[in-house]
Amino acid sequence: MISKQMQQEIAGSSAIRAMFLEGKEMAKKIGAENVYDFSLGNPMTPVPEAYNQAIIEAVQTETSLELHGYMDNAGYPETRQAIAQNLNQRFGTEFEFKHIVMTVGAAGALNVVFKTILDPSDEVLVLAPYFGEYRGYIANHQGILKEVKPDTSTFQPDLTDLEEKISEKTKAIIINNPVNPTGVIYSEETIKKIASILERKQKEYAHEIYMVSDEPYRELVYDGYKVPFLTKYYHNTFVTYSFSKSLSIPGERIGYIAVCPNMADCEQAISGLSVANRILGFVNAPSLMQKALIKCMDERTDVAYYDKNRNLIYETLTKLGFSCIKPQGAFYLFIQSPDPEEKKFVETAKKYHILLVGGTSFSCPGYVRLAYCVSYEMIERSLPAFQKLAEEYKLIPEESC
Amino acid sequence: MISKQMQQEIAGSSAIRAMFLEGKEMAKKIGAENVYDFSLGNPMTPVPEAYNQAIIEAVQTETSLELHGYMDNAGYPETRQAIAQNLNQRFGTEFEFKHIVMTVGAAGALNVVFKTILDPSDEVLVLAPYFGEYRGYIANHQGILKEVKPDTSTFQPDLTDLEEKISEKTKAIIINNPVNPTGVIYSEETIKKIASILERKQKEYAHEIYMVSDEPYRELVYDGYKVPFLTKYYHNTFVTYSFSKSLSIPGERIGYIAVCPNMADCEQAISGLSVANRILGFVNAPSLMQKALIKCMDERTDVAYYDKNRNLIYETLTKLGFSCIKPQGAFYLFIQSPDPEEKKFVETAKKYHILLVGGTSFSCPGYVRLAYCVSYEMIERSLPAFQKLAEEYKLIPEESC
Repeated sequence: MISKQMQQEIAGSSAIRAMFLEGKEMAKKIGAENVYDFSLGNPMTPVPEAYNQAIIEAVQTETSLELHGYMDNAGYPETRQAIAQNLNQRFGTEFEFKHIVMTVGAAGALNVVFKTILDPSDEVLVLAPYFGEYRGYIANHQGILKEVKPDTSTFQPDLTDLEEKISEKTKAIIINNPVNPTGVIYSEETIKKIASILERKQKEYAHEIYMVSDEPYRELVYDGYKVPFLTKYYHNTFVTYSFSKSLSIPGERIGYIAVCPNMADCEQAISGLSVANRILGFVNAPSLMQKALIKCMDERTDVAYYDKNRNLIYETLTKLGFSCIKPQGAFYLFIQSPDPEEKKFVETAKKYHILLVGGTSFSCPGYVRLAYCVSYEMIERSLPAFQKLAEEYKLIPEESC
Repeated sequence: MISKQMQQEIAGSSAIRAMFLEGKEMAKKIGAENVYDFSLGNPMTPVPEAYNQAIIEAVQTETSLELHGYMDNAGYPETRQAIAQNLNQRFGTEFEFKHIVMTVGAAGALNVVFKTILDPSDEVLVLAPYFGEYRGYIANHQGILKEVKPDTSTFQPDLTDLEEKISEKTKAIIINNPVNPTGVIYSEETIKKIASILERKQKEYAHEIYMVSDEPYRELVYDGYKVPFLTKYYHNTFVTYSFSKSLSIPGERIGYIAVCPNMADCEQAISGLSVANRILGFVNAPSLMQKALIKCMDERTDVAYYDKNRNLIYETLTKLGFSCIKPQGAFYLFIQSPDPEEKKFVETAKKYHILLVGGTSFSCPGYVRLAYCVSYEMIERSLPAFQKLAEEYKLIPEESC
C-alpha cells in the first residue's frame, strides 16, 4: 500500500483537475464544440513568436554543454541578470542577479521558499478565497495553513481577521495578486495596511514574518489597473513568479523567486533557496527555457484577447442576473452561486455542458470559478447555455425580458 | 531568520557543489586549462544532433497550446507510450503508457515516489556508498534513511547487513545501478538475492517493501556488461530514470517513473505519483522536452567517449599505484584514499589542481570519487599532476620506476 497520507490526497484530489478530465470525457461523447469547459486555467493565447524563435536560436547557436548542461542551482547568471534589470526598470527596485533564483514555475518557487523558511508547525496565512494547491505546498514542509476571511463585498482581505490570525508561530503570509479565483487586485492601500500589521507583529514576536507573493498573473491586468510590487512596501518579501501566463508556457515550468535586497539575513535566505531547489529535486529550472527567456523579457501573450473575453462573459452574465465582481486581472470570474448549495449549481451547469469549479476548492463556498482563458468563439457558443441556466434559477431580471 | 532545518542544510551543503564552485574560482586565477576538475557529474559529451533537431521540429510544427500548454500531470500520453514501447522492446517487459509517469529528472522522480509511498518515520534502505542527495530526498518526506554496508572488495552490497537492517518500518530500498560513485554494476545475482530477501520480509511484516531503482546511468555501460531491469525480478518496483546522462541534457530536467504492472495496488500507486507530481510543485515534466523525446528513444550520447576516458584514467592511476575497481558503468572511479584521512588527500590533490570529492559525501570514508565525464585532453593534461600526487604518497610501484 502507498502511504496513508497519499491515499487521503488521492481521495480528495483536485476538483479542478477532475473537472478537466470530466470535460474531456464529455467532449468524446457530444463533441468538443458542445462542451463549455471553463474549469482550468490553461492559457489559450499563443506563445509570442519571439519566444519560439529564441528557443530555435539558442539550439542553433549555443554549445550543447552550455545549453543543456548543469549550471548553478539558482540558474544561469545571465538569465538572472536579465530578470533583475527588467524588474528594476519596471518597478524602480534594486535587484542584482544574485537576488533572483530561477525555479520550476511558481509552484516550484513556492515550495522552494517554504522549504527554506518553515520549521515544523510554523504557520502560514492565506487569504481566502485562494488557490487550493497552497494547502499541499504548505503541508509538504510541515507548515500549518491559517485562513484569513475575505470581505465578500470587495474580495479584499478582512484585515481585522488577518491581525487576529497572526500568532507567535506565524512565519509567512501568501499574497496572490491578481487573485486566482476572484480576478480582484489587492490594492496599494490593502498592501500598505498588511505591511503595517506585519511590521508591528514582527516587533511584537521578535522574529521575521515573510510576505510571499505569488504573481503569475501580474501581467494579465485590465483597464490600467496596477499591481503593487511588494518589495517596495515590505522588506521581508519573496516574490514568486511564473512565465506560464505572461508567455503562455505553463507546460514548460519556468519561473523565479526575487528576494528583496533589504530582507533580514538576505544572503542566507538566497543560499537557502539554492539549496532547497537542489534538495527538493528540482535541481534547477529547465536550462533551454532559461536561455530563451533572456531575449524575451518584454514579450507578452495577447492580453487584449483575455480582455475581450472578460468583457463578453462579464456583461452577459450580469445581464442574465448572475452576481460577480468585474475582474481587474487574471482570467477568472468568481460568481455567486444562485443555489444555496454551490455543488448543486455546479451539477446543474453541467446539465447544460458548462463546466465550472466550486468555490469550496478555494475555501470559499457559495461561489463558483469560471476560467475565461478560452476561445472567444466558445464563450459565444456557450451564451445560450448560460441563458438556460439563468432561466432555471429564475435569475433573469424583469427589464431584460 | 530562515528555518533551523535550512540553516543546518546550508552549513552542511553539498561538498560536490562546493567543489564545483571552488574549481571555477581556481580557473579564474590560474586558467581553466590548468585546473583538473573531476568533481562534478556534468556530462561532457554533446547532445545527439537528432535531439536538437527534434526540439526545433516540435517548435516549428506543433501548436503553441499543444507544445507549451498543460497536459495531464503524468505527461503526454504519446511520450509515455513511446517510453513504454521502447522498454518493452529492450527488456521484454509489458508496460502500457499508463505505467509511465513523466518527471522533472530522476531527482524529481525519486521525490515523487517517496511522497507517494512514505508515511512519517518509514524507513528507506540505501546501499553505501551512495549519492548523498538521497538523504535530502528521504528526509523531505519524513522518512528515515538506513545505510547498508558494502563489501568493499567488490562494492556489491553486504547482503547479511542488508537483511539485518530491514525492520517492520522498512518501506523501500533504493537500488542505484550502475552505481554513483563506484561505477560498479550490481549483478543479476545480487539483484536476485535482494529480491528474495525482500519477498521473505514482505511476508513476515505483511506489507509491501518497494524497490526504487535509480538508473540515470543505465545506458552508460562498458565491455558489454548488462544492468538487470528490476521489474523482471521483483514486482513492487518503481524504476526511476533520467535522460540527463544518456542524452547529455542534465539542465533540462526530464525523466520518468516506470511502475511495474504487477505491483500490488498498481493503479492506486500510479494515481499517487500523478498527485505527488502536482502537489510537490513539479506539476509536470517540461513539455517541449517531452515532445522532443518521442522521436529520440534510441538516441544515445557518445558512450565510447566515456569509455576512452575510463581506460586512460583507470590504466594510468592503477599503474601509478592508486587502488580502485575498474568501473563497469557510469563515469566515476572510486579510488581508495592513500591517506588514512581522506580529507587530507582531497586537500593534497588540490595542491596539484586536481579536484576530487571525498567518499564521506557518499557515506564511504577512506575513498574519493573521480568523475571522468571530462574531456580526454584534460585527462591527458592532468596525468603529470597525478604522477606528482602519487610521488607525494610514495605510491609508485618499484617496477614502473
